Amino acid sequence: MTITRDDALQLDAADPLAHLRERFDIPDGVVYLDGNSLGAPPRGVADALAAFAGDWRRDLIHAWGTAGWGTLAARLGGRIARLIGAAADEVIVTDTTSGNLFKLLVAACRMRPGRSTVLIEAANFPSDLYIAQGVCELLGLELGYLDEGAPIDETVAVVVHSHVDFRTGAIADMAGLTERAHAAGALTLWDLCHSAGAIPVDLTAAGADLAVGCTYKYLNGGPGSPAYAYVAKRLQDQVRQPITGWGGHARRFAMTRGFEPAPGPARLQVSQAPVIGMVALDAALDAFDGVTVEALRDKAVSLGELFVALAAERLPGLKPASPGDPLARGSQVSFAHPEAERILAAVAEHGVIADFRPPETMRFGFAPLYLRHVDVYDAVRRIADVMSA
Amino acid sequence: MTITRDDALQLDAADPLAHLRERFDIPDGVVYLDGNSLGAPPRGVADALAAFAGDWRRDLIHAWGTAGWGTLAARLGGRIARLIGAAADEVIVTDTTSGNLFKLLVAACRMRPGRSTVLIEAANFPSDLYIAQGVCELLGLELGYLDEGAPIDETVAVVVHSHVDFRTGAIADMAGLTERAHAAGALTLWDLCHSAGAIPVDLTAAGADLAVGCTYKYLNGGPGSPAYAYVAKRLQDQVRQPITGWGGHARRFAMTRGFEPAPGPARLQVSQAPVIGMVALDAALDAFDGVTVEALRDKAVSLGELFVALAAERLPGLKPASPGDPLARGSQVSFAHPEAERILAAVAEHGVIADFRPPETMRFGFAPLYLRHVDVYDAVRRIADVMSA
Repeated sequence: MTITRDDALQLDAADPLAHLRERFDIPDGVVYLDGNSLGAPPRGVADALAAFAGDWRRDLIHAWGTAGWGTLAARLGGRIARLIGAAADEVIVTDTTSGNLFKLLVAACRMRPGRSTVLIEAANFPSDLYIAQGVCELLGLELGYLDEGAPIDETVAVVVHSHVDFRTGAIADMAGLTERAHAAGALTLWDLCHSAGAIPVDLTAAGADLAVGCTYKYLNGGPGSPAYAYVAKRLQDQVRQPITGWGGHARRFAMTRGFEPAPGPARLQVSQAPVIGMVALDAALDAFDGVTVEALRDKAVSLGELFVALAAERLPGLKPASPGDPLARGSQVSFAHPEAERILAAVAEHGVIADFRPPETMRFGFAPLYLRHVDVYDAVRRIADVMSA
Repeated sequence: MTITRDDALQLDAADPLAHLRERFDIPDGVVYLDGNSLGAPPRGVADALAAFAGDWRRDLIHAWGTAGWGTLAARLGGRIARLIGAAADEVIVTDTTSGNLFKLLVAACRMRPGRSTVLIEAANFPSDLYIAQGVCELLGLELGYLDEGAPIDETVAVVVHSHVDFRTGAIADMAGLTERAHAAGALTLWDLCHSAGAIPVDLTAAGADLAVGCTYKYLNGGPGSPAYAYVAKRLQDQVRQPITGWGGHARRFAMTRGFEPAPGPARLQVSQAPVIGMVALDAALDAFDGVTVEALRDKAVSLGELFVALAAERLPGLKPASPGDPLARGSQVSFAHPEAERILAAVAEHGVIADFRPPETMRFGFAPLYLRHVDVYDAVRRIADVMSA
């Protein structure tokens, strides 16, 4: 029984989140299946940037106070907190994901002195691997690969893991892995890049220790937008990160001679907040106003399942590379094809934008805030056209 | 012989750079003597931000290529290079000043294995002190203070120094200190925050090894705008910085398992470029088009000398805290007064914006791109009014 375009339109008509697409301004004819790489721009961002320019002109340096620039890092952390199951004062927006991973990984190793190993998955996002390699070299520790048999034992200081695998979309068992790490006395450090804003994340319920994430994927903060870091409250006083700039000082403008870490996650800051990027992010997060992550997840599952069903009908050459159970994968579906790169380049010419990940992964992301079922239908049709051409 | 407002207006009439003020949009009645803390917004920034929003909407992830986002870091580095006496391929824009200082300081210590000491001035900007303290703790090195008698000898790995002292404005002897460091086999790492864009800087002529700087002071990039880092070409292959994220990888999107540093200063990048901040900086740097640093310096000296002369006439309570020779100080003049903080708060109510630095420093910055002599006159008059009230 073939799925029709009308079927997709009916799913959209019944979609309780359909109105959220109006919060974005997607060009006509474009099907954007790459919101898990760079989110689309929420409408409010351009206005927020214009308002920022006005604040800067009018109040100059005083805008750090009058326009609230000085409190953006903590306030944005609080806004992201509800999306990842954290308390508002457990999250700070600062620097980049990889930079924050570096800081928290060093801090984690310092909290477990005498332990010789950092564990990660070889299948993790490469930047996470590189950062872990760099930290191990710096501190003289060993790097072990979980997916190559390295055990979680009492030599392990910290386990670094992505919540959602960037290639396959597989969701890790955050609570289970955290429990195993804790049983061995190790900490956990989660990368939420591919889960925050798209699937429910509950750091608190999982007992997670530390986490990092970006804001330019499902959170739509824009290219290179500032990242965030999470530290469970019980650990906040123990975290000593190594990049001790004035941004993380308890009394920055007292300009004392020695470093005193700020309370809470604020100590993870290094320097001045990147205000322009934060202003854009603040406006972008408005797209989540009044929406629960659970409702977003329901829609994303519906979009992903439609794609999978259509692909089974019309794209027989694609080999599924994601978990078949939609609840076991994030808001993406990946397929393998030896000509993945060429096919994606060709469909991009027809307005279907998705991601290639070497060597042969086609990654389709379903950003539930702005994607429609009819978009999914049109995308598969165009991909089928390209593959049969 | 009293200096009059007409005298100041005549200086402005003869100023060959007077037209540059049109590149900014300073509110009427405001005298902004704090451009050395946060520069004023160049007119082009708001338009550039609007264009950015349009690029993002239209091309989504493809804008990394079509809008040139992917090459901004290197291109902006090249634009800043001419202001600091560096080659275009010796400078990269990335992260924050303190973050870059951390990376280059660790890299410098790695280039001088077996040496036990990092030297800095206790009078340096506090964040530089904190970063150096953090690096020494991390690497097990000693931190010595040049201005407290620590010698530059063969135990020293690197000397960290500000080109212009943030409190007094005193210009360091970059070539002389570099020569002394090199004679002992040590490297130099310069902080250019208070010199770039305001006074001539010639890293190449001085034989400097490494440098960092911010872009939100005289370069007018905006609050928390991205910083830059310089590595002399002869050292670029040796620099191994510890935050090895994918941003500094030679083949970022090959997603290989191991880290391979990119050639040149690009290896100092950690993650994705903060595009929005870089777009603003790119527009801000247009304010320097067609202007030499030498001409800016001449004007800044004229502004500073006028302030000093007027202060001698009308502000007898202020104790000079900067070098008397205008060529020995940066584009700022500082004074000490026990009630510095109160006075500055009061004059701010009258539109004169300057900086307080604890415990009792009043710091007046002269941004030569947009400040007029009549502004200097009006500022001193209003300060005198407040102090005699």
